[in-house]
Amino acid sequence: MKLATYNDGSRDGQLVVVSRDLASAHYASGIATRLQQVLDDWNFLSPQLEELSQTLNHGKARHAFAFDPAMCKAPLPRACQWADGSAFINHVELVRKARGAEVPESFYTDPLMYQGGSDDLLGARDAIVCASVEHGIDFEAEVAVVTGDLAMGTGADAALEGIRLVMLANDVSLRHLIPAELAKGFGFLQSKPATAFSPVAVTPDELGDAWQHGRLHLNLESIWNGKRVGLCNAGPEMTFHFGQLIAHLCKTRNVRAGSIVGSGTVSNQDWSRGYSCIAEKRAIETIESGAPKTEFMQPGDTIRIEMKGSDGQSVFGAIEQQVAPLAQ
Amino acid sequence: MKLATYNDGSRDGQLVVVSRDLASAHYASGIATRLQQVLDDWNFLSPQLEELSQTLNHGKARHAFAFDPAMCKAPLPRACQWADGSAFINHVELVRKARGAEVPESFYTDPLMYQGGSDDLLGARDAIVCASVEHGIDFEAEVAVVTGDLAMGTGADAALEGIRLVMLANDVSLRHLIPAELAKGFGFLQSKPATAFSPVAVTPDELGDAWQHGRLHLNLESIWNGKRVGLCNAGPEMTFHFGQLIAHLCKTRNVRAGSIVGSGTVSNQDWSRGYSCIAEKRAIETIESGAPKTEFMQPGDTIRIEMKGSDGQSVFGAIEQQVAPLAQ
Repeated sequence: MKLATYNDGSRDGQLVVVSRDLASAHYASGIATRLQQVLDDWNFLSPQLEELSQTLNHGKARHAFAFDPAMCKAPLPRACQWADGSAFINHVELVRKARGAEVPESFYTDPLMYQGGSDDLLGARDAIVCASVEHGIDFEAEVAVVTGDLAMGTGADAALEGIRLVMLANDVSLRHLIPAELAKGFGFLQSKPATAFSPVAVTPDELGDAWQHGRLHLNLESIWNGKRVGLCNAGPEMTFHFGQLIAHLCKTRNVRAGSIVGSGTVSNQDWSRGYSCIAEKRAIETIESGAPKTEFMQPGDTIRIEMKGSDGQSVFGAIEQQVAPLAQ
Repeated sequence: MKLATYNDGSRDGQLVVVSRDLASAHYASGIATRLQQVLDDWNFLSPQLEELSQTLNHGKARHAFAFDPAMCKAPLPRACQWADGSAFINHVELVRKARGAEVPESFYTDPLMYQGGSDDLLGARDAIVCASVEHGIDFEAEVAVVTGDLAMGTGADAALEGIRLVMLANDVSLRHLIPAELAKGFGFLQSKPATAFSPVAVTPDELGDAWQHGRLHLNLESIWNGKRVGLCNAGPEMTFHFGQLIAHLCKTRNVRAGSIVGSGTVSNQDWSRGYSCIAEKRAIETIESGAPKTEFMQPGDTIRIEMKGSDGQSVFGAIEQQVAPLAQ
């Protein structure tokens, strides 16, 4: 099934079930009002939502209405956790190669992951509001999952069973703040402003054969200012699958229902597939000609991130954000 | 007023108002059931809680009952954000001096802060369950605040107005995991297991003269295995006050109601005041005699963290945790 959160003026929004083709939707109000509620009581509530989903897909839901992605908040407008991996090692290799640094051997066996802020997650059409264009505004197109409860020490395979929903993310980064912030030793904070998510989150079964052991074998399209800059496959080159990422996160602590775990920038070795973040394009330019040429995002810039199924239909709806004028 | 969250088997617990002397409590159910609800709608709900609080303090609340800290979950059992500063520069100086490293000049003007996990926050009496004693289990006694909504770019003084509640925290750290994890560059993740909080969170006005411009001028007592090891003043030596810490956090993003911001380990230059984390004791030993002698926490160890007002009464109730046997 496909779920979304409609903006009703409240902090957590209103849960809706969305049809497979993203054409229609139905309030889930008889079952649950907020997505977090469903995650808190998944085994009881999700079958009821599944039933509504089937009725909706058969065109038989009585109070269905046309689905409007512009009405969507993030599926979880605030979450108890957002932990983002960097599971595509090609991304790490590229960025490091550009600055003449080696990739430590351990990076191939031990995932990189950072703890992100989850108090202010953006809807798919929300503006990217940044304090200064000097910060080097970049998009990062990713896949993300929402988990159920997982006990400390859960292994990678068992963790796969704890994946409730899959969605897309735009993990906006402020590139020029990163070097100084990471040099302080405590990880990202100011260099990672609010992350945006696709209009719709879907259960893994909705992905069919494209979902294989915690990897999503579909192309992630990034369109920057109307030009397609990336069409990277999110599956085969994901060095650590989502079960491994979640197991990494719950090695020393419990992970509670509603935690969001990201893949990191989707990246392929074949440069002709393009890029899912500008930093990679700049890394390639640096490797090829000694210096980056492409600038980061400017006010007014747009970014569209979308993934289509083998039937050519949008799976999650599109993230479509614009960098807001700074004087807003 | 003083607020706590009683364990009723639910994820978010049940909000109670606690009397100033921590002797009695009263369910807030006619006003709000969960603390997050109050933070979401502070201006409307907090005056109602204040009224109940006054009735309770005057011994006139009809359904008051004896307050039992053992019934408490964390005031916010899960939060949308937990960001922990390292505002006592003496702590940073000590730890660095022990390993022969300089403190960068910028650390005196730009706060250190890391993004922590907030999906599984512990109550004051919950066990410290760690995957392995080999990880180097340490307590960290801190002061923490809970914020209201703060817009991106809010300054330090304005941020002080956004502080809703104050509490104590035990930011448990796995010391032996930290060097390798920080070397990866993405900050803490596995090295920071679940954080515990005092039974009670209090509004700043409850602190009287002890609360001065975002600093809490009271002694924080740490008792490890029944022996007092620290009695550090949390006020004068806090290099960055809470307004500055919050302003640091919201420099590039909005901070939403219910965000928790920590002070970092409370630390005083006068070594005779003891320590609020074992790492500091070991740093002092290293500086004095070349090597640490004190071991980190073992299964069965207890830690009690408490702060008393000028009247000698416990302000927040005590955090009293035990390291659980690993075979649990």
